[in-house]
Amino acid sequence: MTVELICVGTELLLGNIVNTNAAFLSEQCAMLGLSMYYQSVVGDNPGRLEHLLRMAKERSDIIILCGGLGPTQDDLTKETAAGVMGKSLVEDQQAKEEIQSFLAKRGHAITENNWKQALVPEGCRVLYNPNGTAPGIIMEEADTCVILLPGPPNELIPMFEEQVYPYLCDLQPEIICSKMVKLCGIGESMAETKILDLINAQSNPTVAPYAKTGEVHLRITAKAENESQAYALITPVEEELKNRFGDLIYTDDPQVTLEMAVAELLQKYHLTVTTAESCTGGLLAGRLVNVPGVSESFKEGYITYSNEAKEKLLGVSHDTLLRYGAVSSQTAAEMAEGGAKSAGADLGVAVTGIAGPEGGTKEKPVGLVYISCYCRGKVYTEKNLYTGSRSKVREYSVASALTLLRKTILNEVKE
Amino acid sequence: MTVELICVGTELLLGNIVNTNAAFLSEQCAMLGLSMYYQSVVGDNPGRLEHLLRMAKERSDIIILCGGLGPTQDDLTKETAAGVMGKSLVEDQQAKEEIQSFLAKRGHAITENNWKQALVPEGCRVLYNPNGTAPGIIMEEADTCVILLPGPPNELIPMFEEQVYPYLCDLQPEIICSKMVKLCGIGESMAETKILDLINAQSNPTVAPYAKTGEVHLRITAKAENESQAYALITPVEEELKNRFGDLIYTDDPQVTLEMAVAELLQKYHLTVTTAESCTGGLLAGRLVNVPGVSESFKEGYITYSNEAKEKLLGVSHDTLLRYGAVSSQTAAEMAEGGAKSAGADLGVAVTGIAGPEGGTKEKPVGLVYISCYCRGKVYTEKNLYTGSRSKVREYSVASALTLLRKTILNEVKE
Repeated sequence: MTVELICVGTELLLGNIVNTNAAFLSEQCAMLGLSMYYQSVVGDNPGRLEHLLRMAKERSDIIILCGGLGPTQDDLTKETAAGVMGKSLVEDQQAKEEIQSFLAKRGHAITENNWKQALVPEGCRVLYNPNGTAPGIIMEEADTCVILLPGPPNELIPMFEEQVYPYLCDLQPEIICSKMVKLCGIGESMAETKILDLINAQSNPTVAPYAKTGEVHLRITAKAENESQAYALITPVEEELKNRFGDLIYTDDPQVTLEMAVAELLQKYHLTVTTAESCTGGLLAGRLVNVPGVSESFKEGYITYSNEAKEKLLGVSHDTLLRYGAVSSQTAAEMAEGGAKSAGADLGVAVTGIAGPEGGTKEKPVGLVYISCYCRGKVYTEKNLYTGSRSKVREYSVASALTLLRKTILNEVKE
Repeated sequence: MTVELICVGTELLLGNIVNTNAAFLSEQCAMLGLSMYYQSVVGDNPGRLEHLLRMAKERSDIIILCGGLGPTQDDLTKETAAGVMGKSLVEDQQAKEEIQSFLAKRGHAITENNWKQALVPEGCRVLYNPNGTAPGIIMEEADTCVILLPGPPNELIPMFEEQVYPYLCDLQPEIICSKMVKLCGIGESMAETKILDLINAQSNPTVAPYAKTGEVHLRITAKAENESQAYALITPVEEELKNRFGDLIYTDDPQVTLEMAVAELLQKYHLTVTTAESCTGGLLAGRLVNVPGVSESFKEGYITYSNEAKEKLLGVSHDTLLRYGAVSSQTAAEMAEGGAKSAGADLGVAVTGIAGPEGGTKEKPVGLVYISCYCRGKVYTEKNLYTGSRSKVREYSVASALTLLRKTILNEVKE
């Protein structure tokens, strides 16, 4: 089955916002095994939207529209789509009540134009929206299905996941299931090389690698008549991936991030950690604190941007800084150990490097970053050379630091 | 003049990447005063691309294509576009030499398919690419202009800014100039209300507000015959905005971020600062360290996620924590002052709050964040209640902390 995406909004055509909805919906449709050949963006202009919609009806089985369901005069997606499908709009009582209670809960007055949002095409399915005032809509015809979703991602994403995804699953003659394993500490091309035979031999299930900063995600997707048959196809491939990548796999749960996996290990083994950051300047700690409840394991962290702070807060020796410089494996190691000791933590993870754009030399170029992890008397240190902008170098450094922290914990608990 | 955007890449249709190029190019075209009515995404499929391109030729004056200029067999944007424009491909000697030297510099071997990238449509303008191996291309016909750009943003952005923007400026009968003023410490709707008369009365120049996290950017755009006439239209509006918003404007330079503006103030007044973070867990320091060269003013920072760390590192009193709790104006104030004293800095900025999703109570709900700034004996404290996800609450907290830091410096130096 083919699916086509039409995002409606002048703010997209003016470049005021980035179209993250398109990426989200495309990824979801790919997971469902739907083929997407076209995405379009049009403004809040009924003539152009109608033209596009008629073309989409000719060439695609499913059309997903997002945006333009707001209460104002410009918002005409619903009116236009209903017109193209030959439906008139009728008031939906439940939608009306939900809009009323949504606004009342927030202490907002109801204005006359809010009732426009309770109008729906006759005979459609209404997707009620607990996160906003615009309900979503599914309109079905013999050979076309048109799905309307609100534009704000915090409304669109839960509505899609909870109501549209299961609906689209049911539309498919076969079901599509997928599993994801996430790797850290290996590059995309190396990961791909290790499974090239699987990728080349694949038809059902398929394996596809996705590169993220400092991570590689592998998605295994299978088509089958039912879920148990699909997982029966997936499981041996997943086992094979686990054999090949071993500890490089940090999770097989798509919701789990690298920082969550690290926080879980810390908690499981009752370990505490501290951070000692120079060029990342708090971003590593910031990622750990992304995890709600990490406070049991992570109580304090240090940003030591100056040499004086490295000496004072972490006890890095003056001599080390003089002899090897702030960006050196020696300094990184002392930062990690000193941080752990200052904080009274089991582990200390340290980052020191040259993020650029200035400050590089021939011996120590921009992108040179040392990462150390101390754990109970032992220090593991890594030297990395990253390319890219200041922010890219810092992002990669944070991912590598989390990866080294994870490796250190795994080494420690194995012994 | 109308412009249309076609992004080519299966990775966009699969949702593997977010289409930031579309946002960048749309914003640039809006600044140029070009009207964009359609954006599309297609895969690396010559049939569908050709179909779209023929349609775009009918309805738009300028067509910008990006992506699909790589060296591999799938990359067919150039071949397809040349076909639609009725041009054959010829080798461009300079492109060939530049590809050779680009690869040689990086120690990469040249493979046979790299030479494909030196082929260009006959009679076109070649946009040489110092950041990659794919040159950009401009093809002109009587009533259509087709522009091909490489997909990677680090190649596309400089090529557009340096070579395409000036070209498009010259195409226009009138020139478009714009200026941006950036505000912090005021919400979008409040900012809009303050200039509603200007927005309603506008034709040339126009004023448009753009909401960013914790900031509002106002862009003034004028059309005129030449640059000096355009700026003559812009200047009085800019002066009026400066009158109305005063110190809320932190810059009129589009390249300057809030953290850069704060870092500049610190440097200008020879002030040092430290950070003391609880719920933001290093993100505030991380944003300051975005600024290269901030090390003069920011030497160290503290992440004090636990109460013990707040006492130990910042000297927050045990009694304050017991009586008012970690999330209170009293604790925030003591964190800011204690941080400044521990670090020996002139200023201390502190954040403590409940980022969620758990941990809220009726008295202290999720989203409650206290921000304090200490400067030479005085403490300024703000109470905020943010809505949104954990990461949104943390992002807003960081923006507010930078805003309060800026306000504190301005107050301090005025006296």
